[in-house]
Amino acid sequence: MDFDEKLDELFIDLPEPLEDVGNAISCVRVGKLLYVAGVLPFSDGKIQAPGKAGIELRLDMARLAARTAGVMMLAIVNKELGGTLNKVRRIVKLDGYVASGVDYQNHAKVIDGASELFIQIFGKYGKHVRTAVGVTSLPKNASVELSGIFEIR
Amino acid sequence: MDFDEKLDELFIDLPEPLEDVGNAISCVRVGKLLYVAGVLPFSDGKIQAPGKAGIELRLDMARLAARTAGVMMLAIVNKELGGTLNKVRRIVKLDGYVASGVDYQNHAKVIDGASELFIQIFGKYGKHVRTAVGVTSLPKNASVELSGIFEIR
Amino acid sequence: MDFDEKLDELFIDLPEPLEDVGNAISCVRVGKLLYVAGVLPFSDGKIQAPGKAGIELRLDMARLAARTAGVMMLAIVNKELGGTLNKVRRIVKLDGYVASGVDYQNHAKVIDGASELFIQIFGKYGKHVRTAVGVTSLPKNASVELSGIFEIR
Repeated sequence: MDFDEKLDELFIDLPEPLEDVGNAISCVRVGKLLYVAGVLPFSDGKIQAPGKAGIELRLDMARLAARTAGVMMLAIVNKELGGTLNKVRRIVKLDGYVASGVDYQNHAKVIDGASELFIQIFGKYGKHVRTAVGVTSLPKNASVELSGIFEIR
Repeated sequence: MDFDEKLDELFIDLPEPLEDVGNAISCVRVGKLLYVAGVLPFSDGKIQAPGKAGIELRLDMARLAARTAGVMMLAIVNKELGGTLNKVRRIVKLDGYVASGVDYQNHAKVIDGASELFIQIFGKYGKHVRTAVGVTSLPKNASVELSGIFEIR
Repeated sequence: MDFDEKLDELFIDLPEPLEDVGNAISCVRVGKLLYVAGVLPFSDGKIQAPGKAGIELRLDMARLAARTAGVMMLAIVNKELGGTLNKVRRIVKLDGYVASGVDYQNHAKVIDGASELFIQIFGKYGKHVRTAVGVTSLPKNASVELSGIFEIR
């Protein structure tokens, strides 16, 4: 599988990851596992589709936020691996936090915005275990925050 | 230790895990770690004891939901290991999300519904680190969602 | 790097970790990873700075709670490693749950209370990936709950 070629086919141009600021860093590698966390749906320096899913945010916009955070996650992984996704062996886990109200039930559909992207690119190697839960609020009023574990070749 | 025998002693008949639908899968193995996630308290195809702990759901019902999700987690592990729990070396971690209101404080007691089950079956090998937090809402109006890491022989 | 000396320089006297009660334990080691979880801001047997960040709790107090939970996390790691932090190779991940309302946006600043402590002690080896999310409620009305992964030498 050529995952970089797949990215091109999907016309996805990975952004430059945000610089690490403060205390948290964007990824840590331990053995063959790469931990990526605290990924927010940044696009052109702004949080895309902020707010609460199901309250001020329709499902399609919350899914777009999840996809944008997913693209940012891949940008971080790509940079860590020296400019290629082809060293990814598989995606292991995705934790998805969705800012949403007490009656919300579509968390999985929101996080699918990122999961579907991963499977488009990595095929069966993009399938992962996942949590999708509703949280009261997220940094910068983001609607979605993602954390992931990738297995590297 | 014969964990399968222990299951029998406790009269626990593991259900067939739900088929993987959509993008997330029920478990991923990396080396000797098995990640299991997004486990909801499904029983006979329905979410057991839905709702918010401490609001429409009494503690004993929320604990039952956690236990049911724990049984489902073991069913997934059992299937992945070819129909036995005896290849489990230990349970490493359990993340428990409890749908609950702002005044709720019994998250640990709820998740104990799963933890106690694990210790009944695995003894000291069932003891784990754990998070137990209150979330606004969960998929399908479930009261509990679990994610776990198992170490395999 | 002598992390124990650094602790002394910062006048940090690690408390005795709470005894494991019930079903969850304070840490589990698998290979070179040490999982620590469910850490609440206990100080002298009481939860420090309880309540909701941004509602009854000012930012500086919520940060103090995060720092206190961070100290407790280090106390657990120190004990597990036989009374030294010098066997820590690096901090891998920190998951921070902040009890807070729907409008809250300072989750990262709160969890920085723990992250800054880790970097003061471990320098670049203390930098970690991190999640910081807002939850409805936490056990014992704590304002912060932490979970971490440490890599051990």
